[in-house]
Amino acid sequence: MSLATSRRAAAVSPFLAMDVMSAAALRERRGEGVVHMEVGQPSAPAPRPVIEAARRALDTGRVPYTEALGMPALRERIARHYRDAYGVSVGPERIVVTTGSSAGFILAFMSLFDAGQRVAVPQPGYPAYRSILAALDLVPAPMVLTPEDRFAPTAQSLRATHAEQGLSGVLVMSPANPSGTVITPGRLGELCSAARDLGLPFISDEIYHGLSYGVPTATALQFEPDAIVINSFSKYHCMTGWRVGWMVVPESLTRAIERLAQNLYISAPYLSQIGALAAFEAGEELDAVRDGYARNRAILLEAFPALGLGRTHPADGAFYLYADVSALTNDAADFSRRMLAEAGVAATPGLDFDRLEGNHHMRFSFAGSESDCRDAVARLRGWLKR
Amino acid sequence: MSLATSRRAAAVSPFLAMDVMSAAALRERRGEGVVHMEVGQPSAPAPRPVIEAARRALDTGRVPYTEALGMPALRERIARHYRDAYGVSVGPERIVVTTGSSAGFILAFMSLFDAGQRVAVPQPGYPAYRSILAALDLVPAPMVLTPEDRFAPTAQSLRATHAEQGLSGVLVMSPANPSGTVITPGRLGELCSAARDLGLPFISDEIYHGLSYGVPTATALQFEPDAIVINSFSKYHCMTGWRVGWMVVPESLTRAIERLAQNLYISAPYLSQIGALAAFEAGEELDAVRDGYARNRAILLEAFPALGLGRTHPADGAFYLYADVSALTNDAADFSRRMLAEAGVAATPGLDFDRLEGNHHMRFSFAGSESDCRDAVARLRGWLKR
Repeated sequence: MSLATSRRAAAVSPFLAMDVMSAAALRERRGEGVVHMEVGQPSAPAPRPVIEAARRALDTGRVPYTEALGMPALRERIARHYRDAYGVSVGPERIVVTTGSSAGFILAFMSLFDAGQRVAVPQPGYPAYRSILAALDLVPAPMVLTPEDRFAPTAQSLRATHAEQGLSGVLVMSPANPSGTVITPGRLGELCSAARDLGLPFISDEIYHGLSYGVPTATALQFEPDAIVINSFSKYHCMTGWRVGWMVVPESLTRAIERLAQNLYISAPYLSQIGALAAFEAGEELDAVRDGYARNRAILLEAFPALGLGRTHPADGAFYLYADVSALTNDAADFSRRMLAEAGVAATPGLDFDRLEGNHHMRFSFAGSESDCRDAVARLRGWLKR
Repeated sequence: MSLATSRRAAAVSPFLAMDVMSAAALRERRGEGVVHMEVGQPSAPAPRPVIEAARRALDTGRVPYTEALGMPALRERIARHYRDAYGVSVGPERIVVTTGSSAGFILAFMSLFDAGQRVAVPQPGYPAYRSILAALDLVPAPMVLTPEDRFAPTAQSLRATHAEQGLSGVLVMSPANPSGTVITPGRLGELCSAARDLGLPFISDEIYHGLSYGVPTATALQFEPDAIVINSFSKYHCMTGWRVGWMVVPESLTRAIERLAQNLYISAPYLSQIGALAAFEAGEELDAVRDGYARNRAILLEAFPALGLGRTHPADGAFYLYADVSALTNDAADFSRRMLAEAGVAATPGLDFDRLEGNHHMRFSFAGSESDCRDAVARLRGWLKR
């Protein structure tokens, strides 16, 4: 008996960044060097207070389940963060600690939408939006981002997508992956108003908050108190492999999300929650890491034009350059494979983010070290010269 | 705008054990004592090699994502476990490291079934089966377990359920939660044959393997090479809050599951995977913990009859007594609330496991310490006397 795959699983695309990561790991196990620019993963270690808090917890030997919505102390600390960072008042009862932002998307989509409903997502955009929606029998409705709008979704594009496709919700991301675009506070407010006018739940992916280069970032909660905000400790806090994030949800959804979280996750990992709580003490250390990204960004922005990689999206925030490589290839997947095999540089083909334009884009993460960035530039220079 | 909950989220019941745990935690924050018998959580700490391995990993500061299917070394070690423990040959490419068994169920159901399909599950049984199926727009089809069959599902009940309801798959669990029943190897083989005859994927929840009291446990893989096996480090290995488990899947499903795992989880938590690998070195320590459960089980089995809690399911394995409390109440939820408030004993009402008979059953976990068990008996004796 050969088991057949469900239709919904067949509709899920591979996450190419992860496939590139696997290929890069295979290369490393053969003893060959790789500069990692494929996954959105800080090369900086988790901050010192995080490591120390986790070590203290380990010493007790107690690593139990927590309440499904998260440890109360962590929920309170996250709620306080909204007052401190944005001047927005959010009660701890509206905070849901999640197993990474991945769980946040699943819980948001499951709690809000039923099979067949359409949810607007940016294109290019984080590929897991599309995949999670498909796995849940929901339909991603792309809002195509354009250079005229600096690759930001707009109230107008939301209204147009709704008129064409009949939406049940909308998701936006700022700072964005892969483009780096930060939606200005004014534009974000307009998007929130438009969603409210259309009666659409507004999901705001704020996972790259804390990482922007000279531009302000606003939370959707400043404009829409019922926004569902998704965030994570993976990016600014350098805690990828800990798998811990959070949501802010309207009170009307908390119990439904609690029931789902109890049954689908039990709880987020304990040590990661302990570490996350301590991460709030690491602001200085983390800002220094962010300043390193700013330097890396400058290095790439300076070097890329001469390599034929100069047409990039804005990179206001996050830690990616999303480069138009149409002068070099029209098959980004093949380009990525050769770049890894021949130059030892791992980067992600644009098809992950955009089914239309992705074949002539590549995403380069600059979350590594400065020497990684310089090494990558040197390797690419040598490789592209050939 | 008050956001409406999706129909599928509304169909998900609360996980009462987690609700009891939250209520118990609230009581403890008020400074009142609680004996915890509500959640299936060992009170023993994670084994020493696990703690030490995690500490060494923490010292490096590197806590990255791993490949979506898990760290290669851990996948190989788990594959070897099937040779060592069961004499079954399973290649590492068929092992999927998951974020607890919770992720295993989600990945199994998503990869195999489409909206509207029916999956047979035991009743009484682990409540998250029903809830995850409902959240994925699938329909749980209960196989009602009976005392005549020692509360084990049978090939006959599977055939009857299929004839009545038209199944797309079947899930069984041994040792079972809440009953403790171990399906004998002969019966398990019959179930596998019946599923194969009916063309149904066979999902075997083996999360309590390693925890049985004088009876052998078989893996479904001994009878059905294409079985989907779900397991976890939470129970035998005492690693609940680490959130790490695994699946064994047929090769025909691995790529579909990899795509889903990439998009839905990125990867299981890194420190937990490091710890899980070390857990295989802790056999002696863990067997001693299991021997403690055997003593706890004997204490409860001896004390419960005099308390009016003597009619229990088999308890061949796992670490629960599932007691018929019809002599004491017909509202187990109320009984549980009063037991917590008045006796300081947290236990889970049967409704979690059985919509039909659950209102006169309670599940008591004996995964705590021996003194917890003795304390619980004393508290219950005092309380039930009133």
